[in-house]
Amino acid sequence: MRPAPIVALLTDFGHRDPYVGVMKARVLSFARSAQLVDISHEVPPQDLVRASFQLEQSVPYFPSGTVYLCVVDPGVGTSRRPLVVETERCTFVCPDNGILSRCLPLCGELKQIVELPTPDSASATFHGRDIFAPAAGQLAAGKPPAELGTTVADLLSLDFMAAVSTPASLEVSVLCVDHFGNIIFDLARDPGWASLELGTLYSVGDRKVPFARTYGEVGSGEPLLLWNSEDYLELATSGGNAQREWGLTPGQRVRFTT
Amino acid sequence: MRPAPIVALLTDFGHRDPYVGVMKARVLSFARSAQLVDISHEVPPQDLVRASFQLEQSVPYFPSGTVYLCVVDPGVGTSRRPLVVETERCTFVCPDNGILSRCLPLCGELKQIVELPTPDSASATFHGRDIFAPAAGQLAAGKPPAELGTTVADLLSLDFMAAVSTPASLEVSVLCVDHFGNIIFDLARDPGWASLELGTLYSVGDRKVPFARTYGEVGSGEPLLLWNSEDYLELATSGGNAQREWGLTPGQRVRFTT
Amino acid sequence: MRPAPIVALLTDFGHRDPYVGVMKARVLSFARSAQLVDISHEVPPQDLVRASFQLEQSVPYFPSGTVYLCVVDPGVGTSRRPLVVETERCTFVCPDNGILSRCLPLCGELKQIVELPTPDSASATFHGRDIFAPAAGQLAAGKPPAELGTTVADLLSLDFMAAVSTPASLEVSVLCVDHFGNIIFDLARDPGWASLELGTLYSVGDRKVPFARTYGEVGSGEPLLLWNSEDYLELATSGGNAQREWGLTPGQRVRFTT
Repeated sequence: MRPAPIVALLTDFGHRDPYVGVMKARVLSFARSAQLVDISHEVPPQDLVRASFQLEQSVPYFPSGTVYLCVVDPGVGTSRRPLVVETERCTFVCPDNGILSRCLPLCGELKQIVELPTPDSASATFHGRDIFAPAAGQLAAGKPPAELGTTVADLLSLDFMAAVSTPASLEVSVLCVDHFGNIIFDLARDPGWASLELGTLYSVGDRKVPFARTYGEVGSGEPLLLWNSEDYLELATSGGNAQREWGLTPGQRVRFTT
Repeated sequence: MRPAPIVALLTDFGHRDPYVGVMKARVLSFARSAQLVDISHEVPPQDLVRASFQLEQSVPYFPSGTVYLCVVDPGVGTSRRPLVVETERCTFVCPDNGILSRCLPLCGELKQIVELPTPDSASATFHGRDIFAPAAGQLAAGKPPAELGTTVADLLSLDFMAAVSTPASLEVSVLCVDHFGNIIFDLARDPGWASLELGTLYSVGDRKVPFARTYGEVGSGEPLLLWNSEDYLELATSGGNAQREWGLTPGQRVRFTT
Repeated sequence: MRPAPIVALLTDFGHRDPYVGVMKARVLSFARSAQLVDISHEVPPQDLVRASFQLEQSVPYFPSGTVYLCVVDPGVGTSRRPLVVETERCTFVCPDNGILSRCLPLCGELKQIVELPTPDSASATFHGRDIFAPAAGQLAAGKPPAELGTTVADLLSLDFMAAVSTPASLEVSVLCVDHFGNIIFDLARDPGWASLELGTLYSVGDRKVPFARTYGEVGSGEPLLLWNSEDYLELATSGGNAQREWGLTPGQRVRFTT
């Protein structure tokens, strides 16, 4: 027996309203035994950078064949295209707004992009329910992507500002702040960043921060820089909340010096 | 094979405590393969108007045969009756407090109402766990409603204040404010509301608001009135949060003039 | 057919980040048909007392054989041991930090404790994904605990400060505050606490609080003491939020006099 298909959901709909439940209802109308998994519904409203990062953090850990239903959709009701993006590893259903920018490189060969039609009966503001969830449900039920719409050639991509390194400094952008108040920078671990060494003390403004391996290596309440569990550069406070102390916000540029 | 029964949950229990998980545990004790779907658990505490609206928004999209486990229950521990309400479309398990007022008209014929007994072992404050979830679990496992209690004749209904329209004005009640800060009024789209026309400029106090089709039709940060995805009248701020600017609260009466 | 195994999750990861979804992805990679149930992911960061209480509140209601995946883990990345704890009733996967202190007495015989190895590939900060979730997935897939690691002899336990009672007074610790603002004390109902009688008026500082059976027995906005749905002593405000009025915090000691 074919195992129950996994449908993973990512939205900025929050938990106060029934919107996510309604999307799941629509998925189940087509694929009754789907295994529904929430990635997050607390993406800050319309924050495509965060959404694209969350997909990057999640996709490597889901089984092959997962259908991702991603609805962070500032352009709902405009002419932006609703898409199915099929890759070697998995399939995405999402608006064409760059939300896949960070995860596509992790998904193997890009097999096809299909534009979903917008039926006349679709509302102007809730395509999650009217277009994306029904498509995800049909894919979960085994329908080939090509039967859901028209093949198109390309999709939009977001630009991210690269980190800049000199022998004595590193300049990076804040990518997001997590639930624990850890500040995550847009810099993935790479042998090239040799200047980031365990034990080194970095300066940010007039504060000093050691580069460590894990939270327990500095005293409680002390700041540290580390490669986090996704191998991204993180500024944390051991046993505390770095965001409350540093006040950095996504997109902000920060300069570390040795 | 009979497909896994869907049990959809709606409560005001929030996500901090284990209450929802405990209710699901009880459902699964009777119906191990149930497909559990959360509608919302962030209904404002004891807000029956919001809960009844969320059911109205959700019920049309779930498959027939869904069992709804609805526990917004200000009267827990008093003599209010625990009910199973069976309709042509689906079955509800809920306290008798009007929570079904807005969704019942969407569910076809009302087949029977069953009052659930309150066992001596039930706690005084958590009937979700002790009465409602076990009933939902048994219904999901295929037990007929009549075997769960005693048939009764009627159930309570909430009153809602109707919208009032004149050729030059419209007076409506705020129904709720959603996660995005959109203000939703208790007025469903209907051909009778001819005065609400695309492009018309409405006045509210000393502010002007255009009636539009979707958020993208006005500039970012600009207000608009529209029929939302559930075909309800909505006051929104394009790319922003209307609630923060207008400060309207549920139940408040608002007058629009042309 | 063996029924789908239940995997119940308890973390302090919150809902903003994809961490919980990623753990579920890992579980499903081993046990594709697992029935995943969230207990809570809003345990206050690193609050082991709350986490241990939530397990105590939940475990009695889940079916036998449930696998609990519990990741509240202040010591992640240090030498604290990752464990599988098998009992007569169910199996836990968790760090060795006392998180099971309050629920183990409810689980029958303690059958074995297994220390999970920490693979070299594990991150330093997200053992939920790299160690605990894979173990839970393998257990859900039917793998015996002993095959996952090395048997060990014991596990850590938390200390809780006992309630102290005299004929005219009762001194108890605040255990937690729930979503509704109800203040729950670390005192389970027991015939020995004869001094707590229905109708009695208790003094706390200069305020008087009646001991009642349920919220509806006092006027709206009035305080009351009661045995709550888990048979714990609770200080509530009928139709309101006790926490906002009393300002008590977990761990705080409170003295009631008759």
